Amino acid sequence: MTDGIVLGANQYGKAENRVVRIVRDTPRHEIRDLNVSTSLRGDFSRAHTDGDQADVLPTDTQKNTAFAYAKEVGVSSPEEYAVALASHFLDAAPAATAAQVRVEEQAWDRIAVEGSPDGHDHSFVRRGTETRTCVVTVAGRGAEQRTWVLSGLQDLVVLKSTGSEFRGFLKDAYTTLEETDDRIMATSLTARWRWSGTEGVDLDAAYAEVRATLLSTFATTYSRALQETLYAMGRAVLETQPQVAEIRFSAPNKHHFLYDLGRFGVENNGEVFIAADRPYGLIEATVAREDAGDAGEAWTAVPGFV
Amino acid sequence: MTDGIVLGANQYGKAENRVVRIVRDTPRHEIRDLNVSTSLRGDFSRAHTDGDQADVLPTDTQKNTAFAYAKEVGVSSPEEYAVALASHFLDAAPAATAAQVRVEEQAWDRIAVEGSPDGHDHSFVRRGTETRTCVVTVAGRGAEQRTWVLSGLQDLVVLKSTGSEFRGFLKDAYTTLEETDDRIMATSLTARWRWSGTEGVDLDAAYAEVRATLLSTFATTYSRALQETLYAMGRAVLETQPQVAEIRFSAPNKHHFLYDLGRFGVENNGEVFIAADRPYGLIEATVAREDAGDAGEAWTAVPGFV
Amino acid sequence: MTDGIVLGANQYGKAENRVVRIVRDTPRHEIRDLNVSTSLRGDFSRAHTDGDQADVLPTDTQKNTAFAYAKEVGVSSPEEYAVALASHFLDAAPAATAAQVRVEEQAWDRIAVEGSPDGHDHSFVRRGTETRTCVVTVAGRGAEQRTWVLSGLQDLVVLKSTGSEFRGFLKDAYTTLEETDDRIMATSLTARWRWSGTEGVDLDAAYAEVRATLLSTFATTYSRALQETLYAMGRAVLETQPQVAEIRFSAPNKHHFLYDLGRFGVENNGEVFIAADRPYGLIEATVAREDAGDAGEAWTAVPGFV
Amino acid sequence: MTDGIVLGANQYGKAENRVVRIVRDTPRHEIRDLNVSTSLRGDFSRAHTDGDQADVLPTDTQKNTAFAYAKEVGVSSPEEYAVALASHFLDAAPAATAAQVRVEEQAWDRIAVEGSPDGHDHSFVRRGTETRTCVVTVAGRGAEQRTWVLSGLQDLVVLKSTGSEFRGFLKDAYTTLEETDDRIMATSLTARWRWSGTEGVDLDAAYAEVRATLLSTFATTYSRALQETLYAMGRAVLETQPQVAEIRFSAPNKHHFLYDLGRFGVENNGEVFIAADRPYGLIEATVAREDAGDAGEAWTAVPGFV
Repeated sequence: MTDGIVLGANQYGKAENRVVRIVRDTPRHEIRDLNVSTSLRGDFSRAHTDGDQADVLPTDTQKNTAFAYAKEVGVSSPEEYAVALASHFLDAAPAATAAQVRVEEQAWDRIAVEGSPDGHDHSFVRRGTETRTCVVTVAGRGAEQRTWVLSGLQDLVVLKSTGSEFRGFLKDAYTTLEETDDRIMATSLTARWRWSGTEGVDLDAAYAEVRATLLSTFATTYSRALQETLYAMGRAVLETQPQVAEIRFSAPNKHHFLYDLGRFGVENNGEVFIAADRPYGLIEATVAREDAGDAGEAWTAVPGFV
Repeated sequence: MTDGIVLGANQYGKAENRVVRIVRDTPRHEIRDLNVSTSLRGDFSRAHTDGDQADVLPTDTQKNTAFAYAKEVGVSSPEEYAVALASHFLDAAPAATAAQVRVEEQAWDRIAVEGSPDGHDHSFVRRGTETRTCVVTVAGRGAEQRTWVLSGLQDLVVLKSTGSEFRGFLKDAYTTLEETDDRIMATSLTARWRWSGTEGVDLDAAYAEVRATLLSTFATTYSRALQETLYAMGRAVLETQPQVAEIRFSAPNKHHFLYDLGRFGVENNGEVFIAADRPYGLIEATVAREDAGDAGEAWTAVPGFV
Repeated sequence: MTDGIVLGANQYGKAENRVVRIVRDTPRHEIRDLNVSTSLRGDFSRAHTDGDQADVLPTDTQKNTAFAYAKEVGVSSPEEYAVALASHFLDAAPAATAAQVRVEEQAWDRIAVEGSPDGHDHSFVRRGTETRTCVVTVAGRGAEQRTWVLSGLQDLVVLKSTGSEFRGFLKDAYTTLEETDDRIMATSLTARWRWSGTEGVDLDAAYAEVRATLLSTFATTYSRALQETLYAMGRAVLETQPQVAEIRFSAPNKHHFLYDLGRFGVENNGEVFIAADRPYGLIEATVAREDAGDAGEAWTAVPGFV
Repeated sequence: MTDGIVLGANQYGKAENRVVRIVRDTPRHEIRDLNVSTSLRGDFSRAHTDGDQADVLPTDTQKNTAFAYAKEVGVSSPEEYAVALASHFLDAAPAATAAQVRVEEQAWDRIAVEGSPDGHDHSFVRRGTETRTCVVTVAGRGAEQRTWVLSGLQDLVVLKSTGSEFRGFLKDAYTTLEETDDRIMATSLTARWRWSGTEGVDLDAAYAEVRATLLSTFATTYSRALQETLYAMGRAVLETQPQVAEIRFSAPNKHHFLYDLGRFGVENNGEVFIAADRPYGLIEATVAREDAGDAGEAWTAVPGFV
C-alpha cells in the first residue's frame, strides 16, 4: 500500500470454548469446567490485505487443540493448561509472535449424601460464587521466549451491613450526597494478580489463599471508602504472596440506599434498603511492589481496567 | 361497550422490588436479600376503558408497602412476608379480588475470619447457588379468604459425570442419535412445590430439607432418562414432606457432548466434553398426591410450566 | 404405584433450535432467522416411572426434524412452519396427545448499497427491533385434530415524551406518588393474539398490520394510564383483524423519573429524566371478543401471563 | 509506606448513568437516550492509603453533573456533551489529572402515523440496531490541556448469505476444518475510530456516514476471510473520513454451520444452517494512517481490544 493506510495491531482466535474435563481414573471423579479463549498475534498482514490464509492457523484448529490438550496435557491448574496451550500455538503458527490464552473456571462441589462424609463420587452441584480466571501470554521462541501469568477472579459478591462510612469528601455546586457514618458497602469484585514467577507455586492452593485473604480483609477492615478497602485488600495479598508482583481491582459500588420509611411513620435505623442497579460507582485500583518489574505483555488486550 | 369487544383477565403491580432487610438488633446481623413482585387482580375495568384510576392502588404504593412491610412485619420467611403483603393489598384495594406476591431470595454466607468460628458478624459473601422462590396468592375476603403458597428454587445447577444412560427410545426417519450407556447428565433445575397447608411448618427448615432431598436423590439415582430422575426427585420430596401436595419441575437438559479426539489420535473415554448452549432438551413434569386437592388459583399466572 | 403419588402434567422437547433458512433459488436471497422450540405432551409415564424410553421420540430427533422441515416444508410464515412441525410430531410419536411449537423470529433488512435501490441481494443487517413470535398447539388425530395459533411480538420498545398523565388514583397510608399531568410513558411490549382461524390470512402481512396498529394507537392515544393505552391498542387490533379472537399484553412500565435539577438551580421542565431499571410497573391485560369461543389448549404452558 | 508496596494506576467514577434528554422547545420533540459513564484519574492516594476523601469528588456528584449538563450544555452530539463533562470534572476535582467520559446512545425512530409523513411529534419506537458509542478523554489544564475523541458503534449485526469463502489456511495435526468456497459470514461488529481532530466535523452526520460506509463495504466486498473484510471496511472509512486517524474492530465470527440434512435424504445446498452460540471466532484489527500520530491517552482503559 502506498496511500498511507496500514494494518495496525491485530489478533485473532477462538473465544469461549466450553471445555469440561472429567478425570475418571478412579471411581471418584474430578471435574474442571472451563471457558477457554485463545488468540494469536503477529504478522498476519497477508490475511488482511490479500485474503491469503497461508499463515492463518484456523480458529477451528485452535478449538480442537483446546479440547485435545485438556486430555493430552490435562488441567492440573488453569494456568498450567493455558501455558501449554499458548506455547503450542507459537510452534504451530510460525507467523505468530505471541499467543494469549484466557480461562474462566466454574467451581463445582460434591453433592452431600448419607454415608459419604466427603460427598458423592460423581455427582456435583455448581458452587455458583465467583469465577476463577487466568490470562497467560507467551511471546517469542526458543531462548527468547517469555511467559506472563495473571490469575484472578470475577463476580465475587460481598457486602458488609455496617463498618463503612463515607465522609469529608470534596463538595461542589452539584454535590447533594449526605455524609454518612454507617452504610451498607457491597461490591462484585473483579481482581487479577500478576505473578513475577510461578515456580514452586501450587496455583490451586494459591488461588484459595488469595481468595481467603481478600474476603477476610474485606470483612475486618473498617472502611472509610471503597478505595481504602481495595487498597487494604491488595496490600494483604502482596504481604502474603511473595511471588505476586501486583494486583488490580475493578469494584462496582453496588449501592444500597436506605429506604425512606419515615413517610409512613416507620423507623428505619439501617434496616431496610433498596438495592440499586444503575448507575453505580466504579472503583479501580492497582496495588504493586515498587520493584514489580516491567509487566511486559502481561496486560495486553486484557478486557477492562483489570 | 356494545360492539362485542371486552376486557378479559388482567393484573397489575410492581415487579422486582429489590428489598434488602438487615436485622441488627444485636451486633450479629442477619440479612435477607429479596426481589419482590406484587400484583393485583379484580375488577379494574374503569382504568382500562375510561382511564379512571379511582380503583387503582398505584404500583408505586405497592412498592412502598413492600419495603415498609420488611420492617413492620419482618421476613421470618419469604412465604410469611408474602402472605402478609398479599393480604394487606386486598384490604387496601377494594376492587381487587386476588393479590399475588412473588419473592426471589439470594442467600449470603458469613465470611470466614480467624477467631470467629461461626463467621463474621456483619460481613457476607453471596452464596451464589440457586435462588429460593415463593409465590403466594390470596383471594377473597373475610371467611371466604383463601391462601395458596408455592415454595421453590431456580437455577440449581447439578451434573453427574456418569451413572446416566439413554437407550431404547423411539426412532423414526429423522433419528440420528446414538444410544449411550454412559453420559454426562446436567441440568439447571427449577422446582416449585405447593403446600396443602403451612401450619406448623418451619418454612426455612423445610426449604433446606427439600433442597437436600432433591440433591441427594439426583446424586444417588441411576438415570435412564432425565424424566426418570425428575420423577424420583419429586417422589422423594412428597415422601418426606407430608404437607407438600405436588411438585413441578422444569429442567433443561444441559448437553455435554463428547468431543471427538479420535481425529487427532487421542483417546477420549468420557473425559473431555463440550458444554453446549443451544438447543437444549427441556423436560417438565409434575409429581402429585392423588388426593392433592384442587390447586385453585395457586398456579395462576405463574411464569412458565412451573 | 399404590402409595398415592402419581405423575401429573408433563411435557418434553427441544428448546431454542437456531434455524436459519436461506432461500437462494434466485441470486436475490431471502432469509428467515428462527429460534424454534418444540414439545410433546401425552402419556409418557413409562419414561418417568420405569425409565422405559420406548414412547419417547428423542429431543435430538425433534431438533433434526425442525431443521429438515425448514427445507422440506419451508418457512412461508413461522406459523405455517410450526403447524407442519407440530402435526408431524403427533404422527411420529403415537403416545403424544398434543404437540406445541414456539417460534421467535428476528428480522433482517437488506443493506443499502449504491446502485441497488432495493438493497443488496445477499447482505443483511439485523433490524434489531421487536422479536416476532408464534405458539402453535396441535392436539388429537384424524377428524378430532384441533389446531390453535397464537401470533405475537416481544420487546417492542416504545416511548412517548408527553401525552400521558396519571391522576385520581386510590391513596392509602403508603401512597407518596405525586399526581402528574405530563410524564414520559415507555414500555417494552409483549403481545400475543389468538386467531379464531387463519384460513385466508396472509400471516406475514397480518403481522405487519397488527404491529402498525399497535404502534399508531400507542402514538395517537392520549394516556390516562398504561392500562387505558393497552386496552385501546387491543381494541384497535380486534377492530381491524376480524379473525383475531383475543389479544393479551404484558407491558412493563419503564419508569423515567424527572431528575431534580432544581437543587443546582437548573430548571427541568420535562427535559431531563433518569431511566430506571428496577422496580417497574407491570401491566397485563386481555382484550377479547365476547364471542371469542373457547381457547382450548391455545395458552397451555405459554410462558408468563401472555 | 516503606515496605515497598505502593498504589499504582487507579480511577473512579459513576458508571451507567441512564440520561434521557427530551428537547421540547417546540411541539416536535427530540430525544437522546444515553448511558453515561464518568471516571477521574490522578493523585487520589490519600483516599486509598488513609481513607481521606478530601480530594474525592463523589461519584454521586459526577452523576448529578451528568444529568445537569444534559440541560445546561445539552447533547448536540454525544461527543460534544462528553467533552464538556470531562473538562468540567478537571476543574471540579483539582487532584484529577485526566477525566474520561464514555457514552452509549440508543437510537429512536418516530412512530409512523397517518397524516404525518415524517412521523409522530412525540411518540417513538426504539430503533434497536447498533449502539452508538464515544469515549472522550481530557487530560491536563490550561494551555497543556489535551482532548482525545473516539467515536464508535457496537452490536451492529450483519450477515451475508454468500460471497464468502475460507481456503488455503495453515494446517496442522489438529486441523479438521474443511475448506469452503461458499459460506454464511456474520458478525456483531464493534468499531471505534479515533479523530485526529473534530474541528468542523458534524459528528452526527459523520456517524451516519461511517456506519453507511461500513455496511456497504461489508455488503459489496467478496470475502476470503473476516480479516480481509474488516481491513477493507477500515480502509473505506479512512478514505472517506480525512479526520479519522485510525479505526479498530472487534468482530466475533458468528458461525452458521450447514445442517447435515443428507442423513435424512434431504438436499441442503446452503439453505439450512444452525446458528451457533459458542465458541466463536474473534477477529480484532486496527487500520490506521501511517502518519496517525501518537494516540496519547485516547485508548487508556477502553474496554477490550477496541
